[in-house]
Amino acid sequence: MSKLVIVGTVAFDAIETPFGKTDKILGGAATFIGLSASQFNVDSAIVSVVGGDFPQEYLDLLSEKNIDISGIEIIKDGKTFFWSGRYHNDMNSRDTLATELNVLADFNPVVPQDYKDAEIVMLGNLHPIVQSSVLDQMTKKPKLAILDTMNFWMDSALEDLHNVIKRVDVITINDEEARQLTGEYSLVVAARKIHEMGPKYVVIKKGEHGALLFHNDSVFYAPALPLEEVFDPTGAGDTFAGGFAGYLAKTGDVSFENMKNAVIYGSTLASFCVEKFGTERMKNLPKKEVHQRLQQFKDLTQFDIELT
Amino acid sequence: MSKLVIVGTVAFDAIETPFGKTDKILGGAATFIGLSASQFNVDSAIVSVVGGDFPQEYLDLLSEKNIDISGIEIIKDGKTFFWSGRYHNDMNSRDTLATELNVLADFNPVVPQDYKDAEIVMLGNLHPIVQSSVLDQMTKKPKLAILDTMNFWMDSALEDLHNVIKRVDVITINDEEARQLTGEYSLVVAARKIHEMGPKYVVIKKGEHGALLFHNDSVFYAPALPLEEVFDPTGAGDTFAGGFAGYLAKTGDVSFENMKNAVIYGSTLASFCVEKFGTERMKNLPKKEVHQRLQQFKDLTQFDIELT
Repeated sequence: MSKLVIVGTVAFDAIETPFGKTDKILGGAATFIGLSASQFNVDSAIVSVVGGDFPQEYLDLLSEKNIDISGIEIIKDGKTFFWSGRYHNDMNSRDTLATELNVLADFNPVVPQDYKDAEIVMLGNLHPIVQSSVLDQMTKKPKLAILDTMNFWMDSALEDLHNVIKRVDVITINDEEARQLTGEYSLVVAARKIHEMGPKYVVIKKGEHGALLFHNDSVFYAPALPLEEVFDPTGAGDTFAGGFAGYLAKTGDVSFENMKNAVIYGSTLASFCVEKFGTERMKNLPKKEVHQRLQQFKDLTQFDIELT
Repeated sequence: MSKLVIVGTVAFDAIETPFGKTDKILGGAATFIGLSASQFNVDSAIVSVVGGDFPQEYLDLLSEKNIDISGIEIIKDGKTFFWSGRYHNDMNSRDTLATELNVLADFNPVVPQDYKDAEIVMLGNLHPIVQSSVLDQMTKKPKLAILDTMNFWMDSALEDLHNVIKRVDVITINDEEARQLTGEYSLVVAARKIHEMGPKYVVIKKGEHGALLFHNDSVFYAPALPLEEVFDPTGAGDTFAGGFAGYLAKTGDVSFENMKNAVIYGSTLASFCVEKFGTERMKNLPKKEVHQRLQQFKDLTQFDIELT
């Protein structure tokens, strides 16, 4: 088993969907990544920052999942990062209603001593300089560095983003962002251009249409589970990344063949995440249910064709 | 092996894409379905109508593919159905520039005597009354009746459409059309509603995002092959339907398990269709290339996960 270090936001979210709305609830990229990766009982640590307003019970929740929270700095007189958004009827697009950086504005990530030699580093969506700083702190080159990012950084910190992209093995990015980053409409061509930027593996997330994993000239396609209803997509991409990273940490095998399984695990866990608001579904997700759903993914895609 | 009867347009198309434009070339739903199904060397017949302006060489092309063309009526003093369209840059949407029904306006389909007992009936996109008329002419109930349709008939002949939907076993329809037909955004819910309209099997085509096959509570997902470039999407849906119907006719097995393979074959053949204008790629498609691409589909989707 490999150690997994996760950097990203630990935050408050307030969410509106056609099905209802929430007050401030637990959110943040590192939260979703950590909860998802915890399915694999790996040794993981979150590197983040919160304010004095952040409830102890949320921290306890993470600790109970075997997540080392010593790297979550608490700024007593600061306020926790807050994001609020409203999803449109199709659940594929959303408006951001509020973004309050608060303690995140001056975040200096500190990787706990025990995790400076972690084999797997999962850089959740954050300023690319913060992401780079985590890589700088590693005492040996990780077996696998995975980067998640967003169009926001392409608009506001493109050079810094390119600098961190250069240093990672895997990038996870959604389809529109892959197009923006490369200026290419075809995802096949976009993936090739991103390869040339550094990452040997490119994961393009297509939401309800699944995810593509590219490696050189090879490609693997994980569908999304067709769902009756997407209740709240918040955190689905991070949950995907957490499942991906967690499975690779658990198995210690970072080959392309095993990454296919990691993508399937990521998709499987993300399919749970969207069933309830925020982290609600992921907080207590029995392994048995995960295994049942993995079987559904198999049934969904496996065929045994006879060449005629 | 089962006999396959195909009804649909045999037509002229004129196409504009970002890559170029064509004069009037061979097109039509039945043409694409027939060429695609001919990959399986099944006994098939096309039921359609053309005008005196339709070149003999196009008819010869179909004959050479072992397609019985005795059911293609030639109206000497009439003109062949003509469609012209222009694709937008994303290739996912298009404007219709011209639709000249011509001989199609008074089309009375006549199923050749030898095909009135065909086991598989593929009703390509046409007025639902014409589709129903073909079913009326069958002397025994086909093992499988497959219907393809379009939003056009939902807008202009909804009651007739419902009457033919009731009578078929399989419907192939694209995602937006499934939503329009049912008023449901979720494709899972839409498929269930379409089941209730009659068809035991519902295939929802999602273009570059693949296709879903629904049967009761089971679902199968065939991805589209990620392509560098879609040159011309015209006929891709019909080519999919032709591969689906042709494979089922060849194998004679209309179980859900075998339909999964049929969906994969349909997706595989459609991935060739879009590589060149119109029927160009499908006219001479070596079986060896098809088998190589089927292997790509396997590599694209097959995984061997270990439950941890």
